[in-house]
Amino acid sequence: MHHPEISTNANLVDEDRTEGPTLGEIGLQHFVPYLMNRIMGAYNGSLRDDLARLGLTTPKMRTLAVLSVTDGLAIGRLAVYAIAEQSTLSRAVDALEGEGLVRRSPDPGDSRATRVFITEKGRTVFDRIWPTIRRAYEKMFAGIDAAERAAFTATLQKLLVNVRKEDF
Amino acid sequence: MHHPEISTNANLVDEDRTEGPTLGEIGLQHFVPYLMNRIMGAYNGSLRDDLARLGLTTPKMRTLAVLSVTDGLAIGRLAVYAIAEQSTLSRAVDALEGEGLVRRSPDPGDSRATRVFITEKGRTVFDRIWPTIRRAYEKMFAGIDAAERAAFTATLQKLLVNVRKEDF
Repeated sequence: MHHPEISTNANLVDEDRTEGPTLGEIGLQHFVPYLMNRIMGAYNGSLRDDLARLGLTTPKMRTLAVLSVTDGLAIGRLAVYAIAEQSTLSRAVDALEGEGLVRRSPDPGDSRATRVFITEKGRTVFDRIWPTIRRAYEKMFAGIDAAERAAFTATLQKLLVNVRKEDF
Repeated sequence: MHHPEISTNANLVDEDRTEGPTLGEIGLQHFVPYLMNRIMGAYNGSLRDDLARLGLTTPKMRTLAVLSVTDGLAIGRLAVYAIAEQSTLSRAVDALEGEGLVRRSPDPGDSRATRVFITEKGRTVFDRIWPTIRRAYEKMFAGIDAAERAAFTATLQKLLVNVRKEDF
């Protein structure tokens, strides 16, 4: 396959060729999306392996994690917080419901909508996997003091506002 | 499916129940892995859609991006820098080679190994997609000054050292 649209449609991009630095000028080790993707690839992969040994997938863990702090969410918002496609999230909720770790309940304000709640059993399971997650988190921040962590977190919150599609 | 190993094997985790804060105490909006996964989910998803319109997938784009700044890599290191499974990366290299955008060449120091090089045509294609990537990058950092960006990048470099499996 060739890319005639890339090879010939130069108008689109030539106009901003000179607007900023090249990737070579920034350098891979200073290019934030590279650093963030590589960090989260390593973190998520390592945690996925640890969770598999505990019998949980990443979408199921994230569903329990989110509901443990903000319960009774609609599926759409739960998928955003769990950073999962809605279809993936629905399958995770199905599986967790079958195991008695979450339950669906009609939304009292909207008869067509359902909300998802964590059960006591679900809280117990999450409490037992949380130390594994916290260890991965603390390994990530080893040697970084509270002030640097706070400044870093504040910048992340700004980046999220810049890139997210949702208003939450 | 139930999780007897979670429900019964409490010894593993009870010992460090009290070692640190709970997720509820940290708060989802201050939990760095949540913030970073959500930021990169939005960034990667938006860029993936933009690249699809230019006829490129994320692994192919990342392969060209990496080789444009550090050419002649072995597949294994290229996969790490492109943050892709080696099988995914190999398919991307196959496709790019078929399009004349990269070429494989035997490693002069190791007859069983090959290295991957970007071609002139590959550089031309990457130069044309780079403004799209740079726009996504600049959107991410809108309103964040150079000092904050530099401090943030320095912290990211430390986090990468903390979580990566490789020594590069």
